[in-house]
Amino acid sequence: MGDQPVTAAVLVIGNEILSGRTVDANLSYIAARLNTIGIRLLEARVVPDRIEAIVAAVNACREAHTYVFTTGGIGPTHDDITARAIAAAFGVAIERNAEAVARLTSHYQGGGLNEARLSMADMPKGAVLIDNPVSQAPGFQLGNVFVLAGVPAIMQAMFDGLMGRLRGGATIHSRTVSCYLAEGTIAAELAAVQRRFPEVEIGSYPFFRARRFGTSLVLRGEDESAVAKAAAEVRALIGVLGGEPLELEP
Amino acid sequence: MGDQPVTAAVLVIGNEILSGRTVDANLSYIAARLNTIGIRLLEARVVPDRIEAIVAAVNACREAHTYVFTTGGIGPTHDDITARAIAAAFGVAIERNAEAVARLTSHYQGGGLNEARLSMADMPKGAVLIDNPVSQAPGFQLGNVFVLAGVPAIMQAMFDGLMGRLRGGATIHSRTVSCYLAEGTIAAELAAVQRRFPEVEIGSYPFFRARRFGTSLVLRGEDESAVAKAAAEVRALIGVLGGEPLELEP
Repeated sequence: MGDQPVTAAVLVIGNEILSGRTVDANLSYIAARLNTIGIRLLEARVVPDRIEAIVAAVNACREAHTYVFTTGGIGPTHDDITARAIAAAFGVAIERNAEAVARLTSHYQGGGLNEARLSMADMPKGAVLIDNPVSQAPGFQLGNVFVLAGVPAIMQAMFDGLMGRLRGGATIHSRTVSCYLAEGTIAAELAAVQRRFPEVEIGSYPFFRARRFGTSLVLRGEDESAVAKAAAEVRALIGVLGGEPLELEP
Repeated sequence: MGDQPVTAAVLVIGNEILSGRTVDANLSYIAARLNTIGIRLLEARVVPDRIEAIVAAVNACREAHTYVFTTGGIGPTHDDITARAIAAAFGVAIERNAEAVARLTSHYQGGGLNEARLSMADMPKGAVLIDNPVSQAPGFQLGNVFVLAGVPAIMQAMFDGLMGRLRGGATIHSRTVSCYLAEGTIAAELAAVQRRFPEVEIGSYPFFRARRFGTSLVLRGEDESAVAKAAAEVRALIGVLGGEPLELEP
């Protein structure tokens, strides 16, 4: 418990991302939230609104990872095909979920609960609902796959509500050390630090801030003391190379 | 020529996207640019800085699509492993590219061309350079795979420069019709329009603007006249349902 790696994949479903019309805002939210409970997001895919493409991606990801989170394609229109695709991926039937119907009925008491909106209650057999506190139409969980809305505000509310169902992994500790030295200047010594701390993942990210080029070094790992020691070495080498270490986002 | 579908995949390489530290800005740029020359982006994947993960994704995507574009992992630090991964995916050796060395030598005339920076000239055998007008260190093309920087300004300059190498597909025509009606209100009639125009892809996207909920309908297809006719039907049905069609982004 908490010692084996717990991994996840995100599946962003939607032609609007692949056409460039919409910039995805869900991946980074889910990634950051998973981080807080020690679940490692190891993969993300963006797939079009095509059943076969979704089925293939869902099956590849649910086999490879502890959890899969999908976003998008659960609304009332003809292009919302995620529930059908998930059912096809698991080889189960679609059925109208009674509890989902009850929630929609309650939400649309003033009228407007037409067949299109009712179709949002059509879910794979065995689905467990995921609450939607924003607009009621629920998401659902089937096996290790969590099916969420694409609208960021709704997706976020759904995700926060389901986090209690997730088994967390070992906490990932992180330190960021930045400096106004170029990547190429620190690369050799940084690689040496990485060799001394194989259990710490050291990432190097160039930036341009206040008209100056610099580099952020991000150190991540399960061993807090190793992360701290490696960060101290990075700070020291920045000083040796004539820079000034700036610690950010501890 | 220009009649068969030309498809593409984007591979975003980098732990920083999967940890939630950085929000990807490259996918939507590439998607929008490909659109302008009739190339359909059908898939995107985000993979971590791990050789096996990159190799698997590159090989899956280069097999399935006309073109693959990778972003990230071509800098001078130890975590920049994209070139090695591409070489492994193609089963070719890495060699120091003489032209890339010449460009780096010219760029770092004032000094600073150390071994780490020179390593940015290490590319798979057979690689064709992609110009980097921003910071000189080139990207490269191997077969149908184009390897680009992760820093958006550099990636964009590289991409714009390589577009002349791409074979365009049939132009994709697009119309967007928006209205202040909810998705569930128009869903049934919209599905009927979609059935009448199977060659037009109709996407429905809810929005919240000026404190009102609405829906944007995006119609896309190769047949300009069919797209225009379907858009006219969508505008008409919005009127019938008591809304007002707002044409945007023609």
